[in-house]
Amino acid sequence: MSQHYLDPVINPRTVAVIGASKSPLKRGNRAIRTLASANYKGTILPIHPSDDEILGYKAYPSVAAVPFDIDLALVCTAAATVPDILEECGRKGVKGAVLLAGGFSEASEEGRVLEERAVAVAKRYGVRLIGPNTSGMFSARMGCNASGWFNVPTGPLALLSNSANVLLSLVAEFQFQANTGISTMLSVGNQADIQFHEYLDYLGTDDATRAALFYVEGFKNGPAFIETARKVAPAKPIVMYVAGRSDAGKGAAKSHSGSLAGDYAVSRGVLQQAGVVMVGQSDHMYPVADALSLFPVMKGRRVAVVSEGGGPITMAAEALAANGLVLAQLSAETQAKIHAVVPAASAISNPVDAGGGTDPRVEYYGPISKAILEDPNIDALLLVGYFGGYTTRYDDSVAEAEQAVCRELGELMHKHGKPVIVQTHFANFKPSSLAVLREAGVPFHRHIEVAVQCLAAAADYGRARERLLASAGADQALAPRAHAEALIQAARKQGRDLLETESREILGEYGIQVPPSVLMRTDGDAAAAIGKLGAAPLAVKIVSKDILHKSEAGGVKLNVTGEQALRAAFAEIKANAARYDAGAEVTGALATPMAARGVELIIGVTQDPQYGKVIMFGLGGIFVEVIRDVAFRSLPLKEADAREMIAELRYASVLDGVRGAAAADKEALVDLLMKVSQVATAHPDLAEIDLNPVILHDKGYSVVDARMIVAPAS
Amino acid sequence: MSQHYLDPVINPRTVAVIGASKSPLKRGNRAIRTLASANYKGTILPIHPSDDEILGYKAYPSVAAVPFDIDLALVCTAAATVPDILEECGRKGVKGAVLLAGGFSEASEEGRVLEERAVAVAKRYGVRLIGPNTSGMFSARMGCNASGWFNVPTGPLALLSNSANVLLSLVAEFQFQANTGISTMLSVGNQADIQFHEYLDYLGTDDATRAALFYVEGFKNGPAFIETARKVAPAKPIVMYVAGRSDAGKGAAKSHSGSLAGDYAVSRGVLQQAGVVMVGQSDHMYPVADALSLFPVMKGRRVAVVSEGGGPITMAAEALAANGLVLAQLSAETQAKIHAVVPAASAISNPVDAGGGTDPRVEYYGPISKAILEDPNIDALLLVGYFGGYTTRYDDSVAEAEQAVCRELGELMHKHGKPVIVQTHFANFKPSSLAVLREAGVPFHRHIEVAVQCLAAAADYGRARERLLASAGADQALAPRAHAEALIQAARKQGRDLLETESREILGEYGIQVPPSVLMRTDGDAAAAIGKLGAAPLAVKIVSKDILHKSEAGGVKLNVTGEQALRAAFAEIKANAARYDAGAEVTGALATPMAARGVELIIGVTQDPQYGKVIMFGLGGIFVEVIRDVAFRSLPLKEADAREMIAELRYASVLDGVRGAAAADKEALVDLLMKVSQVATAHPDLAEIDLNPVILHDKGYSVVDARMIVAPAS
Repeated sequence: MSQHYLDPVINPRTVAVIGASKSPLKRGNRAIRTLASANYKGTILPIHPSDDEILGYKAYPSVAAVPFDIDLALVCTAAATVPDILEECGRKGVKGAVLLAGGFSEASEEGRVLEERAVAVAKRYGVRLIGPNTSGMFSARMGCNASGWFNVPTGPLALLSNSANVLLSLVAEFQFQANTGISTMLSVGNQADIQFHEYLDYLGTDDATRAALFYVEGFKNGPAFIETARKVAPAKPIVMYVAGRSDAGKGAAKSHSGSLAGDYAVSRGVLQQAGVVMVGQSDHMYPVADALSLFPVMKGRRVAVVSEGGGPITMAAEALAANGLVLAQLSAETQAKIHAVVPAASAISNPVDAGGGTDPRVEYYGPISKAILEDPNIDALLLVGYFGGYTTRYDDSVAEAEQAVCRELGELMHKHGKPVIVQTHFANFKPSSLAVLREAGVPFHRHIEVAVQCLAAAADYGRARERLLASAGADQALAPRAHAEALIQAARKQGRDLLETESREILGEYGIQVPPSVLMRTDGDAAAAIGKLGAAPLAVKIVSKDILHKSEAGGVKLNVTGEQALRAAFAEIKANAARYDAGAEVTGALATPMAARGVELIIGVTQDPQYGKVIMFGLGGIFVEVIRDVAFRSLPLKEADAREMIAELRYASVLDGVRGAAAADKEALVDLLMKVSQVATAHPDLAEIDLNPVILHDKGYSVVDARMIVAPAS
Repeated sequence: MSQHYLDPVINPRTVAVIGASKSPLKRGNRAIRTLASANYKGTILPIHPSDDEILGYKAYPSVAAVPFDIDLALVCTAAATVPDILEECGRKGVKGAVLLAGGFSEASEEGRVLEERAVAVAKRYGVRLIGPNTSGMFSARMGCNASGWFNVPTGPLALLSNSANVLLSLVAEFQFQANTGISTMLSVGNQADIQFHEYLDYLGTDDATRAALFYVEGFKNGPAFIETARKVAPAKPIVMYVAGRSDAGKGAAKSHSGSLAGDYAVSRGVLQQAGVVMVGQSDHMYPVADALSLFPVMKGRRVAVVSEGGGPITMAAEALAANGLVLAQLSAETQAKIHAVVPAASAISNPVDAGGGTDPRVEYYGPISKAILEDPNIDALLLVGYFGGYTTRYDDSVAEAEQAVCRELGELMHKHGKPVIVQTHFANFKPSSLAVLREAGVPFHRHIEVAVQCLAAAADYGRARERLLASAGADQALAPRAHAEALIQAARKQGRDLLETESREILGEYGIQVPPSVLMRTDGDAAAAIGKLGAAPLAVKIVSKDILHKSEAGGVKLNVTGEQALRAAFAEIKANAARYDAGAEVTGALATPMAARGVELIIGVTQDPQYGKVIMFGLGGIFVEVIRDVAFRSLPLKEADAREMIAELRYASVLDGVRGAAAADKEALVDLLMKVSQVATAHPDLAEIDLNPVILHDKGYSVVDARMIVAPAS
């Protein structure tokens, strides 16, 4: 693999410390000490106007004075100095700079202007910037610890964060657990130049990184991140905490990093679509990222639980169910194998309670785990209770037997390609067997819910990965239909949105089933309408570029039957519209058959401020208005995305038929979602689509109302 | 306070170890060693057929041979020996026995019979039993460690559990945290004699216990537990993990302890009503119980957050919002005080970000916390980030300043009666300040979500406590109305449920508004019905003791207007009923006006297998059928319970008016719930009440359908 363009910045062979200092309280002193403490493999170049040497390193009066190439400048000086320093760096050909100072766009308008100036200078010379307002970075390959913190453990996880404080919390967790470490750590600061997606793109090429963990308050370029994530995720799990689930959280994020966290439902939808594993709690970040860096890819959601006590099994069962994981029944063959090991076990079908009646024996765990992992009904194994801490629970006489099982669990995990994870009450005491277990590649945790969270994340990742691999490259055809584009451009020229009649035409162009309709322009058209649409009850709706809210304007009549009633309805609608807005230009009224009964849905395309065009789908009526049971995805949609959107609804069961209704036609719904995606993707100037409601029948669907909004002509 | 009747059993002055042994592998040996290791203050009496001395204690050949009184027998022998041993204990006047052996009702039918025999013997002599199938007990007052585990830390928390394994997990947590300890620990086993509620009653009288923590798979006497909890909870927080949220969890609990976990929604409703604080994760059990044992009573849900970094603040804001806690705005006065301390702070209105721009200083935390806790807008304070670990983050030079703040936080917490809790990234390293913080009574945790969980539990507890104290003793009048009781007893005698007409009469007897109606027995009654009910559209429903499902039988006609239509509807209903069930005895048909529009509700009373009669209330239609948005309470209901039931619905906002509807009449709903509770409480033989639907209007309500089922006559 050829070297990534950010490689010299993240793994610099030379670091110039600008603002280097002999005073131990200064950042420019600490910077040198942390670099030295991590055994930096490159050259440390203190830059100081007068000192020849700082902390034992030869110092230079300026970057220009350094007699060889500089990869990275670690800028420890105040904000105001930065543009000039970057100018010097640029002239010297420095490849990247870490800007530690705050006081830029996060602080004030003056700061924003200063940041713009700094970025302009950097761009002119091609100096790439980390920050400003960053606590720094760490990368293990060169031992480049420019984070200002000591003792950063080295290992396979990359950390990226909008918050230095969150990074420090994670580093503390690595230090306490002492089981794994960090390949690259980036406090992204204001992302004035390099943003999350470029860092991720680099990590995709970094052999030392097996998984990446993000704390995100907001993306500066959401679509680019999505695109990069889709590319990287199948090879490397991306675990992310995203702020913005609550108004309180959004407010705090905005106040902190100036980020617009946006709608969390949108973030979740589009990021999961791109293969990102979302975590909702800070205490799940480390465990989930760590587990995903160790686990083989999980193929389904069926978990087996083994313990020597019913209480932890019960708690595990609750936690699994809460996370959509399934306690699948073990095969008769597996049960027979387990019975042979522990004839007195109180449960063997899954969960397996290897205690019960007798004192448990650690030797049981090997053959039981083997039998379970050989069972095709099972995708992962969770041990809960004492295991891993038998030496603490009993004494050292069981150490050898327990450690043999630990090694066997690791071998079984890799042989069968199924995650194994251990919850043990004694985790915090770090009994000797747990070191052996980790050595074998099996993660362990103190708490059941955390271990279950790791499995749920592994299952989510496995499914997303499979979807991404299966649908890679298979984007739908995007050629716009000429007539549809003409309608859109005509409306834009006239500075108006599309009429419902036009929206229906556009949908029809892409094969979306639109109910028959007649646009009545004069009273005389009523007869023709009845001639075409028949004696069934009709809906009649005003068509006017000036009337957006048709019902509010008295512009809708329902259940209109026969020519006489249709004429009357048309007249009344026109009269209402004139009363509502005397100046409104009325094209006519649209008559269309009332939709048959079915499940009310809403499908829309909107412009998200972070991610660009996204499609929204949900159950209609109170489900959208009260419950907001909706799913989002970025465009274009793949068929598997459409299916996951449907499955993701909390009350998706409504589609299977409730209150005596027949099951709704999900295949037709998938087709409709895909075609709406096509329409939106094919026409960049179509800003919004709103199909509300759509009625999904047991066979097919009815688009009852269709509204489209165009992007303003520039 | 006089001594509790269980006191001699839980704090025995003498313990006879039955099955005492010199072999270190035997439970009867370990039992003596654990008692001795906890410095048991009473007398250990090994019982052994031949040995004179075991582990240095004088042994006796039988309990009868012991020359003084025995409080407790610790029975380490096999199940089959237990009845005879209890016989001996009974004769000797032993007050209680711990039955360690398994192999009783949890194991087999033979075991169940054996358990019954043992209980019968014990009851004859008044020997109270802990277990069987228990891992034992621990009580700190006498140092009576009969748990079989060493090093059980002593402190203010009581632990009670259906699972010994869960107890051991909690003991490990106490040992690792080393901050608090256990007053009494009980592995309740099969609860063959003493059950959860009697243990709780004892704990209510135990001065050493400040809070009680339960793991429950099922109650044997739910109503007794509820009654005891109501009594104890206002003085001592009761924290509980209850199994049964999922089918998987119910299955595991049943397989483990044979418990019928029942409907979790019912458990949650009735236990919270009784003042119990529910936790849903195993990793919240210890922190929440510990925090509630330390905190002053929290008076509201308004929390202030202080940190020196925006990331942890954002995460705290998310976690608070997820738990219904509010980041209330600090008063202008408080903000001015904070501004005076940290002029450069990036946020001071709440959350308070004391960092931002400058390096944070630990001295800031004292005056900021003081200002916040003096603010009447705030009920509790949460610190997140570095605080508590400044010595780890920086160095020991800040230790003195940090520890002064720790002491001040404890003083402020108690002075203002507002909980204070600290989340610190460095908790696991146990820096010196955290010991000072604990000493001052302030809990700390490693993770934000755990700290927030403690505050949410404190707010829940504070509200429940206030409700229990306010409504103590104010039970509603329970005198049954004679006519209602007569209708119920007549139906019971006839072995049938109540007719809808009778159900409506009973509701009317208690002042529940029932729409006017006419029972038509013959065609001629149609005219009278129209005369009484008028020309408005009517609902017409079959009245027959033999037809339960009226709609299914074609026994319901809606929107019937005028006499002619009413006659036709009556005829059709009768014909349909005859076709549906030719043998059905038809009383007639009930005509009643169609209900006006409003919010559809469902109110019911059912017999819960664990808790007895409970009332259920929820939103109707899809809300109950798809979403199951319902709340449960035990009877009788207090007004505050009714209000909490309404507030507890996930989609309670529907009652405030959605889709343009007016707000529904919540006061009328409260009145209706209270009256339904009265009906159910006044008539013990009324087994079920089902008002479905009830339509709640902007003024008043309409009970559209009322069904009542009587208890079978014995």
